[in-house]
Amino acid sequence: MTEPETSILGSTRGKNSGDAFCATNPATGEHLNTFYAPASEAETERSAELAEQASLRLAALSGSEKGKFLRAIADGVDHIVEELVSIMTAETGLPEPRVRGETGRTSGQLRMFADLVEEGSWVDARIDHAIPDRQPIPKPDIRSMLRPIGPVGVFCASNFPLAFSVAGGDTASAFAAGCPVIVKAHHAHPGTALAVGKVVQAAVASCGLPEGTFSLLYGGGRTVGQHLVRHPSLKAVGFTGSRSGGRALFDLAASRPEPIPVYAEMSSVNPIFLLPSALADRGEQIAEGLLGSATLGVGQFCTNPGIVLHDKGELGEKFKNDYAKLMGQSSAAPMLHSGIRDAYGQGVSSLSSRPQIEALNDCGDDRGQGNCDAQAAVFAADAAAFLSDEALSEEIFGPSTLLVGCDGMDQMLEVARNLEGQLTATIFGSKEEIAAAEDLVAILETKAGRLLLNQFPTGVEVCQSIVHGGPYPATADGRSTSVGTAAILRFARPVCYQGFPDEHLPDELRDNNPLGINRLIDGDKA
Amino acid sequence: MTEPETSILGSTRGKNSGDAFCATNPATGEHLNTFYAPASEAETERSAELAEQASLRLAALSGSEKGKFLRAIADGVDHIVEELVSIMTAETGLPEPRVRGETGRTSGQLRMFADLVEEGSWVDARIDHAIPDRQPIPKPDIRSMLRPIGPVGVFCASNFPLAFSVAGGDTASAFAAGCPVIVKAHHAHPGTALAVGKVVQAAVASCGLPEGTFSLLYGGGRTVGQHLVRHPSLKAVGFTGSRSGGRALFDLAASRPEPIPVYAEMSSVNPIFLLPSALADRGEQIAEGLLGSATLGVGQFCTNPGIVLHDKGELGEKFKNDYAKLMGQSSAAPMLHSGIRDAYGQGVSSLSSRPQIEALNDCGDDRGQGNCDAQAAVFAADAAAFLSDEALSEEIFGPSTLLVGCDGMDQMLEVARNLEGQLTATIFGSKEEIAAAEDLVAILETKAGRLLLNQFPTGVEVCQSIVHGGPYPATADGRSTSVGTAAILRFARPVCYQGFPDEHLPDELRDNNPLGINRLIDGDKA
Repeated sequence: MTEPETSILGSTRGKNSGDAFCATNPATGEHLNTFYAPASEAETERSAELAEQASLRLAALSGSEKGKFLRAIADGVDHIVEELVSIMTAETGLPEPRVRGETGRTSGQLRMFADLVEEGSWVDARIDHAIPDRQPIPKPDIRSMLRPIGPVGVFCASNFPLAFSVAGGDTASAFAAGCPVIVKAHHAHPGTALAVGKVVQAAVASCGLPEGTFSLLYGGGRTVGQHLVRHPSLKAVGFTGSRSGGRALFDLAASRPEPIPVYAEMSSVNPIFLLPSALADRGEQIAEGLLGSATLGVGQFCTNPGIVLHDKGELGEKFKNDYAKLMGQSSAAPMLHSGIRDAYGQGVSSLSSRPQIEALNDCGDDRGQGNCDAQAAVFAADAAAFLSDEALSEEIFGPSTLLVGCDGMDQMLEVARNLEGQLTATIFGSKEEIAAAEDLVAILETKAGRLLLNQFPTGVEVCQSIVHGGPYPATADGRSTSVGTAAILRFARPVCYQGFPDEHLPDELRDNNPLGINRLIDGDKA
Repeated sequence: MTEPETSILGSTRGKNSGDAFCATNPATGEHLNTFYAPASEAETERSAELAEQASLRLAALSGSEKGKFLRAIADGVDHIVEELVSIMTAETGLPEPRVRGETGRTSGQLRMFADLVEEGSWVDARIDHAIPDRQPIPKPDIRSMLRPIGPVGVFCASNFPLAFSVAGGDTASAFAAGCPVIVKAHHAHPGTALAVGKVVQAAVASCGLPEGTFSLLYGGGRTVGQHLVRHPSLKAVGFTGSRSGGRALFDLAASRPEPIPVYAEMSSVNPIFLLPSALADRGEQIAEGLLGSATLGVGQFCTNPGIVLHDKGELGEKFKNDYAKLMGQSSAAPMLHSGIRDAYGQGVSSLSSRPQIEALNDCGDDRGQGNCDAQAAVFAADAAAFLSDEALSEEIFGPSTLLVGCDGMDQMLEVARNLEGQLTATIFGSKEEIAAAEDLVAILETKAGRLLLNQFPTGVEVCQSIVHGGPYPATADGRSTSVGTAAILRFARPVCYQGFPDEHLPDELRDNNPLGINRLIDGDKA
């Protein structure tokens, strides 16, 4: 065995240890030949101390300095796309076009945040001028803006090895806010993490930023991550993964002497409500669209639709049959790693075993050469059964759909009312039906971060209006989005300055508005 | 004993119980003759169910409907000012001018939130128009805005019986966001709570809102509040009070199956840094100002300065003597209730007992007729001692100041770095000194929500720029403010709408902008 790769600790690298692990190609089962040594407790401490030391310098960066840094990372990521194609396909079994697409999304996100901070209005600058002669007491001069929250811990997502990993959305938004970042690599794609980690490390150096701006920690289990989250220097956490993993981090962070926010994106069945005319007018088309949405990326998207509500009756039966046939014909494909594949198998088998559940296809148990292949699964249940058995509404991460037959709108509303928090909720129907379904929209608004009409939820547009978040357990903090420009708000806190002469104020709050940003001045937008 | 008063449960009242309690006049020790029955478990449940039922109706209110409701409460509060003067002075020992002033602040806050929601731009409306011919995939139409979080539990503050109680800042901002509110009354001023509660109940009725919009629960200990926070219908909590009380609620809310945010404003020593020229040029003036800030309202403000850092040496000694003399001469006055007075006594006595602490005056133990009087206390310590003994930096709620002598700016920086989270941090100094104290400002920015130059922190301006919040333990959620228009953001969450035809969108997001609000459209402010 060659010397293992080690964690990135600021400008240096960690030490070798005896417990190094390697990734496995889920398509072939082949163990890849690079090993990675988990961070020691001292190395995790060191990364946190470096981050703490870097905090004030990063907080003092201008928007254009932060933009330059984000663009350096973006360029670096684009530059290694061929290397990523090679490493990431081997580590994840994802096809080459996906790797290229996700590379572009990742560098695109970094540049989006560069644009945002270079423009500068995101800081929500507010100015109240003094009124010295106000009665009965003078009004002081007060001005506020958003400032960075401090060092952020980011956990790489298994299902987005680039766009929600080392230089992904959490990291980009934290850097944009002016926070140092310590990334915990995912054990399934350590080489992808290292390639991107070296890009970030180089960007830190080329931009002359303090080395503690970025570290990357390896660890096979939960120990390194837990140690990181417990460190007093850490001020926030970004996580995308399982409900149990996210909740464990949330509980740990909440139990600290100083609790810190955890932005964990965890679990969503992304319900789709099919109103009668949708089935009548375009049932087959919807079945085909649903197939694409449910099986894209072997169902391993957070916005994968897991539960579909439809009216019972002839049209509903036809839809069930059409969809089951399509899903049955879809090919098995490797999931991201054996742990995810095991969980999928357990979820499908546990759902099959519930009373009042009908399995509409036999998804078998042929796990292929790499032991990670999964076949799509379709189940059906009656809404009454769905409402009486909480187990039916649990997420099965993978290409599984549960079709739930309802007795009309009243029962759909009852199902909607009983949903847990979701990332998305979707309605298919005619304009007239949707106008009449005001109550359904109103209920779903309280349950999900994103509502869709006549579109499938899979695929998340990266833009200023997107909300990729939702009430618990979709996320641990339903007041936030992890995608889009508003994701920066997770890593910022407001600070106000009272009685500061103009020359002591940050540029964002100075009278002559040198940055030319949008501000709220004495109650008016200016 | 006459029939006790009971909780307000929507449009009705609760039942009598055997455990009724009464308030005590802290100035005289007299037990007031109205009794209040604590809410039963069933009544707390009922208030939460009513709130849940009211949620969707409230969420559907327009800004002008919410404004009308808030103004109805404001008018109602103003209307009962004479009644409040009578009840509140008896329940709290606060002087009449304070009651009148706080009444005005309370109705003023309600009208400020009415203005905010009538104008409407607070929802942070964002629009991304579709680009159907974008390559490689079309861009969908996505629009987002802030929506209400759901039923909010508000705990009345002992030190603001009006402005942070039944119709205070937490309630006003939650209503403004479109959330039902369940208030837990403070045991020390139940009559004040009832008078205002009846005003809110009447405003709910006169505005034709669902009865679950508002309930008011009585309870002597922590049981009722804990039961409320555990209820699954509750989605957020507002609290102003002690560190132990706030942390207990935070822990309870974090341990729920569905964790919810707790906005607890808890504990702050509001450090003041006196740079050398401030002492040289205007030491006596600062001592007098500090006296006012430290003893205002018998020191019972969250922004009361508890710790003052100054340079050692001759000027520092003179300042200590001047200040100790002034504080020693100040009159004893009743604190809000015997529990607060007990805690003040314990805090002062515990601080006195620390090694390396010098008590600069004898604040005695004469608690007066009502057993609640407190005398100002001044202590001095060396910065080295302060840094080595965590107990010295704990808040003593009341008119107590600890003067900490430092060996120059380096030691001041060390003290600043070791501070816990604060509501405010203040620097007194000349322009030249402050320009040279960039590091101090940068550190304090990470420690406090509000920074002040050459002004005392007591007194919080209610405006759009104010930040009354700060890192833990100042609050449980340092990303928020509980005062000012931005307080509404605590009770809102973003929701986006994808593929919604114009006629199905909320007014805030429709193409023709019928409300005329500020919006972010395709990246530009419009």
